Amino acid sequence: MLNFTDKLRAAQAQTGSRLCIGLDPDMSKMPPKFRFITGLVDFNCAIIDATHDLACGYKLNWAFYEQYGIDGLRALERTLEHLHKTAPHLVTIADAKRGDIGNTSNAYAKAVFEAFACDAVTVAPYMGRDSVQPFLDYADKYTFVLALTSNQGSQDFQRLPLADGSPLYQHVIRTALTWTQHENVGFVVGATHPDDLATARMLAPTAAMLIPGVGAQGGDVAATLAANGDGMAIINASRAVLYASSGTDFAERAREVAMSLQKNLVLSESDLP
Amino acid sequence: MLNFTDKLRAAQAQTGSRLCIGLDPDMSKMPPKFRFITGLVDFNCAIIDATHDLACGYKLNWAFYEQYGIDGLRALERTLEHLHKTAPHLVTIADAKRGDIGNTSNAYAKAVFEAFACDAVTVAPYMGRDSVQPFLDYADKYTFVLALTSNQGSQDFQRLPLADGSPLYQHVIRTALTWTQHENVGFVVGATHPDDLATARMLAPTAAMLIPGVGAQGGDVAATLAANGDGMAIINASRAVLYASSGTDFAERAREVAMSLQKNLVLSESDLP
Repeated sequence: MLNFTDKLRAAQAQTGSRLCIGLDPDMSKMPPKFRFITGLVDFNCAIIDATHDLACGYKLNWAFYEQYGIDGLRALERTLEHLHKTAPHLVTIADAKRGDIGNTSNAYAKAVFEAFACDAVTVAPYMGRDSVQPFLDYADKYTFVLALTSNQGSQDFQRLPLADGSPLYQHVIRTALTWTQHENVGFVVGATHPDDLATARMLAPTAAMLIPGVGAQGGDVAATLAANGDGMAIINASRAVLYASSGTDFAERAREVAMSLQKNLVLSESDLP
Repeated sequence: MLNFTDKLRAAQAQTGSRLCIGLDPDMSKMPPKFRFITGLVDFNCAIIDATHDLACGYKLNWAFYEQYGIDGLRALERTLEHLHKTAPHLVTIADAKRGDIGNTSNAYAKAVFEAFACDAVTVAPYMGRDSVQPFLDYADKYTFVLALTSNQGSQDFQRLPLADGSPLYQHVIRTALTWTQHENVGFVVGATHPDDLATARMLAPTAAMLIPGVGAQGGDVAATLAANGDGMAIINASRAVLYASSGTDFAERAREVAMSLQKNLVLSESDLP
């Protein structure tokens, strides 16, 4: 089995793109005929079918499924089944932002990597090393630690200056890099902070960065690419692609937006293997 | 409908105890005859039936159910159904440690408070105000923000000194208190740090504290109670109760341990309404 970074490099080379599409279903924004649980799966499958040659992977945010209880999680499972069948060469990211004491994080790691068979996960760093270690212990999988997120609330704690003057998020990056020998830790840095992305890239030159916040959240694509440089990066768009139209042409319009993003996120010659 | 703190006060008065039991099923520690998914529900129900007159509430950690995929979450749902039927007057805490950008935390709040109908939730603070606000907007529900957790990794970031000299966890407490007008924010502070619990209590005198770490994690009950003083507190034990025996007497033994903890966690006269 390929490890995550090999799989990601191959997927990016094949599709020529660092675009990741976030499958975050929001019934209120979908065409009316999909606004029920199995409709949600059909909607996701239509998006996947329309875009899988343009994206290096898909990111599934657990919240958007959990909100519908068990039926929603069944929809998540069925979406992943379709992904694994249709595009097994693309990476799947469980955007779950988990983290708990060691024996509990063991169970979360088993959930996302085994029960739901995703290739990567997002985790929250607040509870420290033993809350992240169980994810890192899956050597072929990949763990993206939240560093500087794309939202307004990233100002509240992530940028707090520590006693040595550096902001918390930089300390998180420096510390988490020491937690694994498998080169399977990366970071979430929002596209809404290009200057900090450049700093994060300097601190972690070989880590993969998961970069949300282009599209609906307003992150600038060109500034993001410039800040990231040649490093391994996955640039996620969710709402901008999924809800490009709420009409019957939603899949075609999603493809158009994905294609436009893909063109802007094309790999440079030096990124290709 | 009672709000959370009224419900908690009534439950603590009725049972005379601040004990909360964590229903964190681990098949490897259960009696062999329960080691399958529906057995897990039967195990939980037996624990609930044997202890519900001794505890003010139950805390369910999502990880231990998610690790078994959809079937595990079905077991979580069925456990909650049994709780709501058998002990509707006790509080239920979704120990999910969630937190994400605003529109996503909306969905998580809907999941724990509506789809799974819990009374309270635990959330991670790293992503800041807009990641916690959607939970706080449920005025009758209660949100426990992670402050200083019971695990070793709590040293990594939570205790970091900020530029003003105070540790991060204290800044989290001070900040989160400003996020709601509903008096529905409390904090997780591990029983493994009694001195810091006293500090947290000073910073947030009227908040409810969710205190894990007695029992298997080694927190000292007497020191915890002394540090907490008269403030509203829920003291959680999971493994010490659930796995008091792996024999056929597991429920009786769980009751004995719960009874012993309940006696030690009895409310003082001044705590009773």
